[in-house]
Amino acid sequence: MKKLSTEPYKGTRDFYPENMRLQNYIFDTMKSVVEKYGYQEYTASIMEESDIYRAKTGEEIVNEQTYSFVDRGGREVTLRPEMTQTVARMISSKWQDYPTPVRWYSIPNLFRYEKPQKGRLREHFQLNADIFGIASPFADAEIIFLASTLMKNFGAKEADFEIRINSREFLNDFVGSLGLKEEDRIKFYRLLDKKDKISEEDFKSSVKNLLGGDIANKLMEKFYFGEAILTMMPESSAAKYLNSVIDILKDLGFKNIKFSPTLTRGFDYYTGIVFEVFDTDKSNSRSLFGGGRYDKLSDNFIDQSIPAVGFGMGDVTTKDFLETHKLLPERNLDIDIYIVVAGETDLVSVYRIADKLREEGLRVAIDISDKKLPDQLKVLDKRNAKFVLVVGSKELEDKKFVLRNIKTREEKQVSLDQIVGEIK
Amino acid sequence: MKKLSTEPYKGTRDFYPENMRLQNYIFDTMKSVVEKYGYQEYTASIMEESDIYRAKTGEEIVNEQTYSFVDRGGREVTLRPEMTQTVARMISSKWQDYPTPVRWYSIPNLFRYEKPQKGRLREHFQLNADIFGIASPFADAEIIFLASTLMKNFGAKEADFEIRINSREFLNDFVGSLGLKEEDRIKFYRLLDKKDKISEEDFKSSVKNLLGGDIANKLMEKFYFGEAILTMMPESSAAKYLNSVIDILKDLGFKNIKFSPTLTRGFDYYTGIVFEVFDTDKSNSRSLFGGGRYDKLSDNFIDQSIPAVGFGMGDVTTKDFLETHKLLPERNLDIDIYIVVAGETDLVSVYRIADKLREEGLRVAIDISDKKLPDQLKVLDKRNAKFVLVVGSKELEDKKFVLRNIKTREEKQVSLDQIVGEIK
Repeated sequence: MKKLSTEPYKGTRDFYPENMRLQNYIFDTMKSVVEKYGYQEYTASIMEESDIYRAKTGEEIVNEQTYSFVDRGGREVTLRPEMTQTVARMISSKWQDYPTPVRWYSIPNLFRYEKPQKGRLREHFQLNADIFGIASPFADAEIIFLASTLMKNFGAKEADFEIRINSREFLNDFVGSLGLKEEDRIKFYRLLDKKDKISEEDFKSSVKNLLGGDIANKLMEKFYFGEAILTMMPESSAAKYLNSVIDILKDLGFKNIKFSPTLTRGFDYYTGIVFEVFDTDKSNSRSLFGGGRYDKLSDNFIDQSIPAVGFGMGDVTTKDFLETHKLLPERNLDIDIYIVVAGETDLVSVYRIADKLREEGLRVAIDISDKKLPDQLKVLDKRNAKFVLVVGSKELEDKKFVLRNIKTREEKQVSLDQIVGEIK
Repeated sequence: MKKLSTEPYKGTRDFYPENMRLQNYIFDTMKSVVEKYGYQEYTASIMEESDIYRAKTGEEIVNEQTYSFVDRGGREVTLRPEMTQTVARMISSKWQDYPTPVRWYSIPNLFRYEKPQKGRLREHFQLNADIFGIASPFADAEIIFLASTLMKNFGAKEADFEIRINSREFLNDFVGSLGLKEEDRIKFYRLLDKKDKISEEDFKSSVKNLLGGDIANKLMEKFYFGEAILTMMPESSAAKYLNSVIDILKDLGFKNIKFSPTLTRGFDYYTGIVFEVFDTDKSNSRSLFGGGRYDKLSDNFIDQSIPAVGFGMGDVTTKDFLETHKLLPERNLDIDIYIVVAGETDLVSVYRIADKLREEGLRVAIDISDKKLPDQLKVLDKRNAKFVLVVGSKELEDKKFVLRNIKTREEKQVSLDQIVGEIK
């Protein structure tokens, strides 16, 4: 018989227990941080009707990069490529039920149909944290504060990352004042986002091709002023808003926040602040994650604009960052006692002992392989356990057992009642 | 502009924070129980190449009830309808790396394309727990023990559920001894599984239609003996194995285990013990979940049969059971302190206070709505928080704050340092 492949589907990952432990460390850290900030968990199905990705998402995503199919009822279905449309749908549905600020988080798996490469898989996980209902700079600042606290809880120092911030609204005001028409802006922003990744030559010729000579020259001249452009429109309310967010964060002690006039983020739905957390290590110099304000997304669902600001932090880039900065945690031992069983022992009695220990809260596994004792002991280092307990007929009779710390190899003779105390 | 629907995709659920808390209670209970038995978590992508569902799965599942599509690389992809094929693929891939017994668990979401109805959705979650590498009755007994412990940890008493057990191997031996050909067995088992749900008349005529008169009469006569058929083949090794599993469980104190000769379970890949946990409440009289032994599934992937036994416990049926038996938990408050802010207060100072409390491990949210204090206080019962802390300019100056227990309405004036003590 021809055998089936044991590989996972292309661009996806199998999480064996040793991988899952790292994954759980990442999820648990994310959860504990956002919950400390009062964010409450939600989730939804991975399947959404495709329509919700057609409005106000980056074009690339809708046309080329989604898993979409038609179901037998004729519905067009998409495996969610991002969570923001879903959470906008959900909050729009029950907007009256929740007093503001609404703080929600989720760690969904997301799907993109793209060529797998470093940091980009077809399925990955992403922490999403959002505040709804607050149009003030304090919401934007809190979201950026939260992003920074996450980095620090993963062990990063402030110097390990930089927070780049910009405002879509300010950009609109600024390029508008220079005469750039609304319909050209999104395309220009996409080029702008690439400015620092390509040569000056290439950037200039791309902008000229897109917009024609006159307006292109005017725009480019300004954008080569860099950070100074924020001071060029002191009366713009968007510039004031952006400065407020930066000031709040500086007041709270941030030293790694930086206005970045070319930052735009991929999605078209952003309406205000956008930001990115950037790795400052030269070997991993890249954007780690980011987010921004999207006050109009609820308009697709209801007759109301719900102010919203949030970010998404992916598991794959987080793992790359932890590796680059040598911040991966030590192995987490997930079994307290591994019981090895001497030959001819009544296993029902061993089960009873194990269950008594479990009632005390211990995680206990039994070697029921029926192998010889030395063979059971030989593989102990693969068990990911803290202690080994030897149980045989003699031990059952004497009610005395040998408990050994697997790492230190320290041994003790104990009664059943003493075990919990020894381990805790 | 035409608005988009805020409904989730048909047959799937949105989990708002109040739903997610119950979902997390179910997941957390499942995890804590299986981890106490030394099961280690794994997971995989929801996408699998469709081939793995073609061999040894119930026909119904492959043809009619899956979400399947062809990707742009020409691969046939299926959203997993169950986890067993995935875990068989994974263990087959790294079989040499793990000493037996291998104990794994996962809580995947699963997809079935079927008409949504009570207890059957298009996407649901299911705890899967499996032991690999052990061909002895102790593995089957442990799996059933674990299933029973889960029920008890959800608050069920032993009388609330019954464990029905049978053996596919014994069934094979038994119907074989009566002359039923191998190719007819799976079809007969499907009818047998329905025996107690349809009239005797209907059952008889279905069996006659399937197999013809002679063999049908012989089979039916026997199956109306019920439990007694286990004693009809005392020399069958399968009968002995089944009796061993039952004996181990009775030795361990089980009173609710019952041999059920018509139980077969849906999937074709079972090779030995099969079991179901059955709700004994008359208003919810149904199978809650089940599992069994499948020693040949790895043969699809590698040249080795890996002994395997496990079960899957779904979230939807679990929730139905908890509702029926009034076992739903009390509301879990997920915020320790909700800070309400008096007008004209410097929010940066409030953020500093909140962050100090978070560093002590508390979950703290701030009302940044800029509403009047009474309006902030009015919606407190919707915050799902334990305490409220009032902060205004005066409190910041005096360094004295009012901390109120939201449920009991008890109030105390406290300094910042006293808060942690008050709450813990």
